[in-house]
Amino acid sequence: MKTVGYLGPQGTYCEQIALHLYGKEDARLRPIAGIDGVIRAVALGEVDECIVPVENSLEGSVNITLDMIAHEFNLYITKEVVLPVRHSLLAKRDCDDIAVVFSHPQALAQCRKTIGRLYPQAKLKAVESTAEAAKMVAASDGLFAAVGSQQAGEIYGLSVIAADIQDNNANSTRFIGLERQPTSSIAGKCKTSLVCQINGERPGSLCDILLEFVTREVNLTRIESRPARTGLGMYIFFFDIEGNIATPNIAAAVHEVEARCLWYKNFGSYPVYMITK
Amino acid sequence: MKTVGYLGPQGTYCEQIALHLYGKEDARLRPIAGIDGVIRAVALGEVDECIVPVENSLEGSVNITLDMIAHEFNLYITKEVVLPVRHSLLAKRDCDDIAVVFSHPQALAQCRKTIGRLYPQAKLKAVESTAEAAKMVAASDGLFAAVGSQQAGEIYGLSVIAADIQDNNANSTRFIGLERQPTSSIAGKCKTSLVCQINGERPGSLCDILLEFVTREVNLTRIESRPARTGLGMYIFFFDIEGNIATPNIAAAVHEVEARCLWYKNFGSYPVYMITK
Repeated sequence: MKTVGYLGPQGTYCEQIALHLYGKEDARLRPIAGIDGVIRAVALGEVDECIVPVENSLEGSVNITLDMIAHEFNLYITKEVVLPVRHSLLAKRDCDDIAVVFSHPQALAQCRKTIGRLYPQAKLKAVESTAEAAKMVAASDGLFAAVGSQQAGEIYGLSVIAADIQDNNANSTRFIGLERQPTSSIAGKCKTSLVCQINGERPGSLCDILLEFVTREVNLTRIESRPARTGLGMYIFFFDIEGNIATPNIAAAVHEVEARCLWYKNFGSYPVYMITK
Repeated sequence: MKTVGYLGPQGTYCEQIALHLYGKEDARLRPIAGIDGVIRAVALGEVDECIVPVENSLEGSVNITLDMIAHEFNLYITKEVVLPVRHSLLAKRDCDDIAVVFSHPQALAQCRKTIGRLYPQAKLKAVESTAEAAKMVAASDGLFAAVGSQQAGEIYGLSVIAADIQDNNANSTRFIGLERQPTSSIAGKCKTSLVCQINGERPGSLCDILLEFVTREVNLTRIESRPARTGLGMYIFFFDIEGNIATPNIAAAVHEVEARCLWYKNFGSYPVYMITK
């Protein structure tokens, strides 16, 4: 049976993705602390796959995920899952005088206005994860609440005292599965991802790379730059391509990009899932 | 006399930039908590200018700075200052059995290997800023040390027990000055910055924008994407251009970019300074 690591503790959105993909019968799911810990576990062979967040529609890239797969380990992306973020306010009981709301800083930022409107007196306090916040509230006696998933509420025995408290409904998070080998099971919608360091000395270099895609009608869903770590002004670029590398025009474009770059890494082609509820 | 806000408390790298630019006689320098607080202070007219970090060569963009100047306030960039990051280990006295090293998470990340080699038994603990760490160490009795600037050591009465402890010497941070009006004093090396939302429905849109620069031999020093906040896969792009908007080919390129974008904001042209020591 496959072992799948996810960003723990139990009750995180990562666990929700893992359960959606595998269920409790099809894989051993293992919560691991810290995104770096989760990625290291799959790279070192302690788990077969890991599920980590890579991008949020309001907060942007999860830099540690991008930096680790670019600079530290050679892993393949084997799936992408998009989850609409629906935060709940979780507490032991409903009351009007909630004093402190705990959660991960990004989750608090995503609900700041709604919480301010519902509980103007409440203070916001950052902790390590949404699940950690729920765990703390369950263990406390005070007038505390946590921002987290409905599932976290169920796990830690808390009630949903307000549902859908995110300020912006265009809020989704993109997760990826990482493994030591590329996946062969690609059906339906898929993507191909790569990272490369462009020769940045020449002004038109990025444009030349983009033209390799554009002239072949290859669609890019995302371009993201991160530091090359060799000095200010030196970058690596992540490209997400719509489609499978087996498609001839994509294969040709990727081949040309590889030939033109100082450094290049292909994360493989993988299926894309969207969770709707 | 001009009032200049910077990310406080006293002894941060931001204060070092402000002192380098103005000295104590030429401006009233005011430490302000949190990058959002500093930017808000200049936008609301509480200070005339603010100094905030915008990019580090290892850690990448300072997202809150980019997001606030794109989405929340209309401010102009009036200068850029690049500072090579040189961290010191600061303590009350030199000793071999340092138990805990405090600092900002990015500063700890930048010195992790060196600290591990010098003080293998030391635990690393994150606090809000490098200056805050120095302040705590100065107020404590234990075998504690802080990672921060030599200046922070002087302010809080600590000794430098190890200098240049950064793991990577390609480590620099880029700071910007923000004001409510564009600067008119541009001499020597300068840049022009803008942010825009490209019509992302069509695959070649980013390439079309880049071509406006490339065909006019306008050099881009940086392209950075951030979420447009309207949904996953929707981005805004920050462009840093080498040179002054008064230059005809730059003016023409920027004019075309403005005409092609869904949304556009120009941060002005400004001088670029490099601190070397």
